[in-house]
Amino acid sequence: MTDVSDATGKTLGEVEKGLDMPLQEAMLTQRAIRRLKPDLVDDAIVLKCIELALKAPTGSNGQNWEFLVVKDREAKAALGRENRRSSSLYLGVGRRQNRGNDAMLRVIDAVQWQADHFEEIPVLVVPCLRGNHLPFVPMPPMVHSSYYGSIYPSVQNLLLAARAMGLGGALITLPLWSTTIARRILGLPTSVVPCCVVPLGWPQGRYGPTTRKPVGDVVHLDRFGNQPWKD
Amino acid sequence: MTDVSDATGKTLGEVEKGLDMPLQEAMLTQRAIRRLKPDLVDDAIVLKCIELALKAPTGSNGQNWEFLVVKDREAKAALGRENRRSSSLYLGVGRRQNRGNDAMLRVIDAVQWQADHFEEIPVLVVPCLRGNHLPFVPMPPMVHSSYYGSIYPSVQNLLLAARAMGLGGALITLPLWSTTIARRILGLPTSVVPCCVVPLGWPQGRYGPTTRKPVGDVVHLDRFGNQPWKD
Repeated sequence: MTDVSDATGKTLGEVEKGLDMPLQEAMLTQRAIRRLKPDLVDDAIVLKCIELALKAPTGSNGQNWEFLVVKDREAKAALGRENRRSSSLYLGVGRRQNRGNDAMLRVIDAVQWQADHFEEIPVLVVPCLRGNHLPFVPMPPMVHSSYYGSIYPSVQNLLLAARAMGLGGALITLPLWSTTIARRILGLPTSVVPCCVVPLGWPQGRYGPTTRKPVGDVVHLDRFGNQPWKD
Repeated sequence: MTDVSDATGKTLGEVEKGLDMPLQEAMLTQRAIRRLKPDLVDDAIVLKCIELALKAPTGSNGQNWEFLVVKDREAKAALGRENRRSSSLYLGVGRRQNRGNDAMLRVIDAVQWQADHFEEIPVLVVPCLRGNHLPFVPMPPMVHSSYYGSIYPSVQNLLLAARAMGLGGALITLPLWSTTIARRILGLPTSVVPCCVVPLGWPQGRYGPTTRKPVGDVVHLDRFGNQPWKD
């Protein structure tokens, strides 16, 4: 067992002990952590996150997933170029649309930071699904929903496990806007669809409570618009 | 605060205390529970599950979700008819394809049970996304992935919260194969997309460990096919 004390001052066993965090606490304090230290993350910790990701449900228990763990600097740089290409568009529009919205501008600053430091992120996890849909072939909505419903529950397990072990993470899709280029970088066959990227590393910032709309505002009883729990 | 002792022998406070379950334990023992008791589930417990669902990430923190809580018997029966229509197809194919696969045949039996008892399920939660994609208009894969990536992390929080409180649940899409009919049943505007259904109730069965492929079988380092952690 490696000692990971350089980055965290903790042994591997102590880091993994974090997974005993109360479920509710992990959920209440999960937030996207984009500013990451370049320090190494032990493989065992990354594999532990993925092991727990695999416990999430998949349609018909198909488990038709693959997880790319990207540590190679060249591959990270190539994904970083893709991320910068799409984020420059995203950030430009975002800054204009969110003038005066400080909370959202802070998110945009963090996205910018991540774009500027992409190569230094110690680990990228790319959750993928096997069983490609033909791209650009029109499908009813439920086909797409069932498909991605077999990967994002596992991504959320991965993010919660990372949070509980004190590892920073976030769910992003900007590096994958071109599936063709992403496939080339990662050597993926066309039968495997990269779904998103989770950059992982020890956080520069802190986890903490997030703000959300009150539950009564988004819950409807029996029919849309009937909101008995709205204040 | 209502006493929920009829179904569980516990007070509401005791049920909610379940949310302090260690994160790892909740993930390791999460499984689809389809056979549910018809007993009432207190609204406060359902709302607690949704409240924690709202803590999951959404793209650009859009929080563009709505959650339908369906308790009305007529609405449940209408969704049950839709579920039976698609499950009869699913079950027929499933039984033929899984001859001799006992584990999968047990899942199929549970899906059948759920189809036969759909109206008796105490609560259905239907997570939805605002901001419709034009149906049947071809889109690049990442558009769909980003879209559904804003609802399924929350669905997983909901399922984990249900598991920790001892409530049975599962992630299903069979009742929604016709988005048009589902919208009519739930009074949803065309700008709101129903994504899946989570039937909730007190379990007849038990939670417990699940089996999955070893993590080394689905993890690739840097390039697809490079599997250093495979046995």
